[in-house]
Amino acid sequence: MRRRAFLEQMAAASAVAMASPALVFGHSRRRAGAMQNVRVDATILRRRLEELSVFGRPEGGAFADGVSRVAYSDADVAGRRYVMNLMRAAGIEARVDAAGNIYGRRTGRDESQPPILFGSHIDSVPSGGNFDGDLGVLASLGAIEALDRAGVRTNHPLEMVIWSAEEGVAFGRGLAGSRIVAGDIKPQDLTAVWSGFTRAEGIARIGGNPNRIVDAVRPKGAHRAYFELHIEQGGTLEESRVAVGVVQGIVSIQRHRVEIAGFANHAGTTPMPIRQDAMIAASHLTIAVNDVVRAMPGRQVGTVGHVEVSPNAPNVIPGKVVATIELRDLSPEKLVTLIDRIKARADQIARDTRTTIAITSLGGNPPALADPLMQDVIDRAAGAMGLSTVRMPSGAGHDAQMMAQLSPMGMIFVPSIGGVSHSPRELTRWEDCANGGDVLLEAVLAVDRA
Amino acid sequence: MRRRAFLEQMAAASAVAMASPALVFGHSRRRAGAMQNVRVDATILRRRLEELSVFGRPEGGAFADGVSRVAYSDADVAGRRYVMNLMRAAGIEARVDAAGNIYGRRTGRDESQPPILFGSHIDSVPSGGNFDGDLGVLASLGAIEALDRAGVRTNHPLEMVIWSAEEGVAFGRGLAGSRIVAGDIKPQDLTAVWSGFTRAEGIARIGGNPNRIVDAVRPKGAHRAYFELHIEQGGTLEESRVAVGVVQGIVSIQRHRVEIAGFANHAGTTPMPIRQDAMIAASHLTIAVNDVVRAMPGRQVGTVGHVEVSPNAPNVIPGKVVATIELRDLSPEKLVTLIDRIKARADQIARDTRTTIAITSLGGNPPALADPLMQDVIDRAAGAMGLSTVRMPSGAGHDAQMMAQLSPMGMIFVPSIGGVSHSPRELTRWEDCANGGDVLLEAVLAVDRA
Repeated sequence: MRRRAFLEQMAAASAVAMASPALVFGHSRRRAGAMQNVRVDATILRRRLEELSVFGRPEGGAFADGVSRVAYSDADVAGRRYVMNLMRAAGIEARVDAAGNIYGRRTGRDESQPPILFGSHIDSVPSGGNFDGDLGVLASLGAIEALDRAGVRTNHPLEMVIWSAEEGVAFGRGLAGSRIVAGDIKPQDLTAVWSGFTRAEGIARIGGNPNRIVDAVRPKGAHRAYFELHIEQGGTLEESRVAVGVVQGIVSIQRHRVEIAGFANHAGTTPMPIRQDAMIAASHLTIAVNDVVRAMPGRQVGTVGHVEVSPNAPNVIPGKVVATIELRDLSPEKLVTLIDRIKARADQIARDTRTTIAITSLGGNPPALADPLMQDVIDRAAGAMGLSTVRMPSGAGHDAQMMAQLSPMGMIFVPSIGGVSHSPRELTRWEDCANGGDVLLEAVLAVDRA
Repeated sequence: MRRRAFLEQMAAASAVAMASPALVFGHSRRRAGAMQNVRVDATILRRRLEELSVFGRPEGGAFADGVSRVAYSDADVAGRRYVMNLMRAAGIEARVDAAGNIYGRRTGRDESQPPILFGSHIDSVPSGGNFDGDLGVLASLGAIEALDRAGVRTNHPLEMVIWSAEEGVAFGRGLAGSRIVAGDIKPQDLTAVWSGFTRAEGIARIGGNPNRIVDAVRPKGAHRAYFELHIEQGGTLEESRVAVGVVQGIVSIQRHRVEIAGFANHAGTTPMPIRQDAMIAASHLTIAVNDVVRAMPGRQVGTVGHVEVSPNAPNVIPGKVVATIELRDLSPEKLVTLIDRIKARADQIARDTRTTIAITSLGGNPPALADPLMQDVIDRAAGAMGLSTVRMPSGAGHDAQMMAQLSPMGMIFVPSIGGVSHSPRELTRWEDCANGGDVLLEAVLAVDRA
């Protein structure tokens, strides 16, 4: 990375980067390794990340102002067209399946083999960043182009993919294109209405065919492997100054609904000792969730993110609080232990505050483990390039968790500056972007050779 | 009270009354005292409370389902018409002033004397009860009728009043008719819009004259005294089984805005130790408010009643919480001490949670002290009837606090079953209602004689 480009990116990082002097040191891009000429073009990758950022950019904004490219929106349609044009320019046919996923296939020497699939998504949350998803998509294209440049033909066919609607912003129940491919689709999904149109209309808008949606489903074993490069979205890699995260799996997420019933009464006339204040109980419970989760060793997380107070008036003692507890870990057993401990604390809090506390499961998803062999492949690929690695869970959901149902799955994380994501302040160094693309390419080649 | 009527009322009390066997013992109505024939008619008082409850009653509901008679609404207009008809039937001219307050005057032997004023309001909060305000209004009318029946002519003119818009539901800034009479009115008050109409239109709707609003203002010294009978709205009288509360004053209310800034981030990817969770800070602060208020001796109260979490999503760490702290006590000095202690706790919480906490005053009102002589008058009046009394602050605001600016003020409380108010479950025994009316009448006569 040239100094000027580096300074420009740092300026875009604004306050996040300024907070810690450690941030100004990137992971230098090593040129060592077995196939050192087969590399993703870092300059082109950066330029494309910048060009893609235009679709959904706030009016009058710059790259650092992030992007709102919600699935099925005009910005999403335009961004998808931009990427498909890049694919065509690279000689790759861009095929849109019935779910709106975009595939690009590169033939292998043995077309009877299942393809090695890799990719990510380009839809974003509202006011999101320019790396979440985009990096994995554009690095996948860059990897195929690198093989073209080097004249390398793989044994397996290769397939890059741009999954539709990963962020689950629209329609309540998230229905990423990857979920449809894994066969998880219900009839009512297509009739859901959001922002004035049905999901069927949304899918048609991005070139899918809602009438033949099951055509998008792929069987178990459809791929030799699935790889996804993604920004970490957390701050673990950057804090520990490690270049590459080898994802062990995507955590199980379990959500619980908390309903606390106290008694709403006049905040002026009700003496303190006889109150049944649901907000006091909710406060103790929020602290208990934090304490219980932090008391166990490991990387589990727990969050009280949604809180509704009733009647929510300055002069009325809160009579009711409805809140959520969300717990995440790779181990479902640990999540059971955590909620059991939280419930025990809730029982005591209810007695102490003379309220009732009901905690009911809202369900969740099981963990999606990365294949141990794919983890090793990624680890070795990074190691061969002289990049430090660490094994870590993904606390966020990804298309990879659906693909893990069909074939061995591997995921590569690169550092997020300040651990910021789903925000215009989301930032990953250009050099780390390129490193991630190279590790992806090396991992694909290693699986192809195996 | 006959047994059957008593049982009916108890049935209406539903779960509140069932909670404590002590509740089934009313304060029996004593017939002793100097003017034992001058008594409010308990049967008529009850019937009128029941009849008034129809205006704003939920469709298909009963007395126990409470009332929604928000100021300026059709129900308010109809309820006011009902009361004015009662006044006319009793030979009292019902005069509506420019602010929409309804006055009814009974001439005294010496019309050069300022009138003794007494009354309350009949507007309610949404889903309120049938005693808050209504009791004071209908007992005031009953007191005048009792004097008529007994052929008693007072020295001072007497004036009953139904204040408009006491509950402050409409238009944000509460602007009770009593506030206007006390001279606290600003031009922008009349142009405020709520529920599709301006306050000027609302005042016109109830028969006031917004163009001549200042005509409603009365000077200091306009009344010999102001008395108000009201339900306690808290549970102190009932818990201590005392028949009558002698109000020492209406507490000062001070509100504060709390803004807690943390950092919103992904609830899956952000490790627990590096979070800056505004809801954790808000929880500690809510508990601190409770602890600080309860640690001091006295009857002060403190409430965190309004809480807004941002972005308020189950999968996002709360980045911001805006909340209110409301503190009430007769002593303004104590309220300063309390908020200072809360701020000191907030500073520590902000450090511990790596958030910032800003607490800013939203202002409030000074205490409105009841005149010590009027307190004595009420105490003696109740004592003469064999009713137990206790001196106590009013934690709720009342029209009496505005009237305290114009003349000596006295307030009479009667027990609220379960301390429930601003709720359909609001309930005061019929016998306590009548006792309150008698104490009001006796106090008026005592001041007239003094």
